[in-house]
Amino acid sequence: MSLTYPAGFAAAGLSAGLKRSGKLDLGLLVGEPGTTAAGVFTTNRVQAAPVHLSRSRLAIGRARAALVNSGQANAATGARGVEDAERATAAAAAGIGLDPQEVLACSTGVIGEPIRMRELLSALPKLSASLSVEGAKDFARAILTTDTVTKEASARTPEFRVGGCAKGVGMIAPNLATMLAFVTTDAPVASGDLQRLALEHLAPSFNALTVDGCMSTNDTVLAFASGSATSAVPLIEPGTPRWEALARSFGDVAASLARQLLADGEGVQHVMQVDVEGAASEEEARLIARAVADSPLVKTAAFGGDPNPGRILQAVGAAGAQVDPTMVDVWIGDVQVVNGGVIPLGYFDDASLMERARLAMGSAEIEIRVSIGDGSSRHRTLGADLTYDYVRINGEYTT
Amino acid sequence: MSLTYPAGFAAAGLSAGLKRSGKLDLGLLVGEPGTTAAGVFTTNRVQAAPVHLSRSRLAIGRARAALVNSGQANAATGARGVEDAERATAAAAAGIGLDPQEVLACSTGVIGEPIRMRELLSALPKLSASLSVEGAKDFARAILTTDTVTKEASARTPEFRVGGCAKGVGMIAPNLATMLAFVTTDAPVASGDLQRLALEHLAPSFNALTVDGCMSTNDTVLAFASGSATSAVPLIEPGTPRWEALARSFGDVAASLARQLLADGEGVQHVMQVDVEGAASEEEARLIARAVADSPLVKTAAFGGDPNPGRILQAVGAAGAQVDPTMVDVWIGDVQVVNGGVIPLGYFDDASLMERARLAMGSAEIEIRVSIGDGSSRHRTLGADLTYDYVRINGEYTT
Repeated sequence: MSLTYPAGFAAAGLSAGLKRSGKLDLGLLVGEPGTTAAGVFTTNRVQAAPVHLSRSRLAIGRARAALVNSGQANAATGARGVEDAERATAAAAAGIGLDPQEVLACSTGVIGEPIRMRELLSALPKLSASLSVEGAKDFARAILTTDTVTKEASARTPEFRVGGCAKGVGMIAPNLATMLAFVTTDAPVASGDLQRLALEHLAPSFNALTVDGCMSTNDTVLAFASGSATSAVPLIEPGTPRWEALARSFGDVAASLARQLLADGEGVQHVMQVDVEGAASEEEARLIARAVADSPLVKTAAFGGDPNPGRILQAVGAAGAQVDPTMVDVWIGDVQVVNGGVIPLGYFDDASLMERARLAMGSAEIEIRVSIGDGSSRHRTLGADLTYDYVRINGEYTT
Repeated sequence: MSLTYPAGFAAAGLSAGLKRSGKLDLGLLVGEPGTTAAGVFTTNRVQAAPVHLSRSRLAIGRARAALVNSGQANAATGARGVEDAERATAAAAAGIGLDPQEVLACSTGVIGEPIRMRELLSALPKLSASLSVEGAKDFARAILTTDTVTKEASARTPEFRVGGCAKGVGMIAPNLATMLAFVTTDAPVASGDLQRLALEHLAPSFNALTVDGCMSTNDTVLAFASGSATSAVPLIEPGTPRWEALARSFGDVAASLARQLLADGEGVQHVMQVDVEGAASEEEARLIARAVADSPLVKTAAFGGDPNPGRILQAVGAAGAQVDPTMVDVWIGDVQVVNGGVIPLGYFDDASLMERARLAMGSAEIEIRVSIGDGSSRHRTLGADLTYDYVRINGEYTT
């Protein structure tokens, strides 16, 4: 019941027949009147119809519901895709007495396949009839594609609750399955402030994830605030202690969901935490951390448990950042493997050092730390190894 | 004898004991007095000692020889690495009566391992004594690391000959093995003009290669022009028919070597040719072509023979270029799989269309063509699939 852990929300999920497997594939989340909403979307230039729809509805008004389908991504579907998203949300809105503009949409599944609208529209009455606090579990299942488990999290401040669920992990799943995340709170937050919470305290956790460096056409993070925790409380003001507490809870929920997404990433056997510090700017630190985490050579080394400093150095140097190689230090776990751009003489021949480095690189959670200078900016990226299973899942899958 | 196919060159290669395997690992190429030289180097911020040495020697004077070792990359080796490269080239120069400044250096092998200098220095007398026209074969073998075959090519104009050899393929080999290429001609070319030939007619073929998107710390292309074809000929002037003919031969040799490198790439089962056209600038076309060729999802689709338009579209959209999705057309072979940003309705259900697309995606040389608009710029990148063997070779290898 993570999404309905905060007061003021109801959810539902069922199998509408959109997935060939017969698993749950349609979900609905609704907040009480007065609920505010915010969203963060993929920056891919190719964006799915539901992304366009949700973004524009958030820009012009107040939304308080989300209709989510799995099975078909409704991306690269042209004018028909836009129409389908509009028809689906309008029908959902009518069923629960909302204005169509109040319903956002998310889709995940095969790119290029139009949504099975007949099945979706037939299932809507049952879906709205089953909206409940308990429905959050079914909602969390209905948004899954190749995920093996649901991802749910919750947190609370002295006054308010925060809940969330998510699916997918970047572009790791076959055929571009999407990352979707939903976060709810019963705190009273103005929509502009909720957007700020989403950008500053939800997006960073999801943006720091990289499984294969690919960015989906459908990635979406939506946040809803019902204000239902109290009846007379004024809106929360940014900068106040209550705001800070709520922001921490948002951050905790996002971080938990991100870790769960990564752990369930297809083929993932080792998670890599790449910390870059001493950078002149956060953007530079981010570039380098992503380059290391996305390098196929570092990812295969993580798979093989090979503490290979040259591969990390190569990725740092090729990241496109202004790096002075003589300032670069690298640690794998607590073993320093590069010192001022130099791999310590004898590194490969020192059996005890190599043993410690191998242990660190063979860990289920590999920690790689790169210091590139005296700057004060840093960035952490979470990545994963490149495994046979990744190739199998993505290579043997056929549309 | 590709490198010595043009008049005025001698080469040699032998096993100095740098590689544990006992295979050939030290090569020397020397041009007659009057030979000019040029070079193009990796743009990785982390560069090996021999890259620094060769670049600076080319900048200040005239070089006419190259000493190449495999086994140790002499990268991330600090001051000691610079000293080693200087000592090695000075000793080689002394043995053949050259000034140290006339000898360039290339290394390929394990990053962080210093060159086995004792073995190298002991082998130099034998190496210089065996310089000959026939020695080009041994030189081509001595520069290999995990390559399974030598890569050699030659071409000619009515007046001049061009020869070349190469090793490695980008960063595909375990532990960052490097791409090295050497091209010789007996045409008389001023060193500045030779640099232009290298930049405009050699580099593009090698830059268009991507096996795993990684750029080595040691990548080097060297060109030498002996002028030995004729005794009285003036230097070739850019823009003349003789220049154009020579440029074409340079381009042919580079293109042949590049194809050979890719075909020998580790784990490569399918080569992907990605053409992007209709771009506003070549840089934009290049960004998109690289994004498609480097996408793990496209690469695994190439491995699996899955004609998946969504994965290609996703890569185009995430390339960081200014793309209008509604202008994007994509073909796999001769099958159009995206039309104005839309995957044709029924694509996945049309058995005969899918059959043709599967055939095209299953081909040994997959052709992907992306048109992004009305611009006049285009770019072609050569890539490869992502296979179990790539993961095995790079994942199971341990330092």
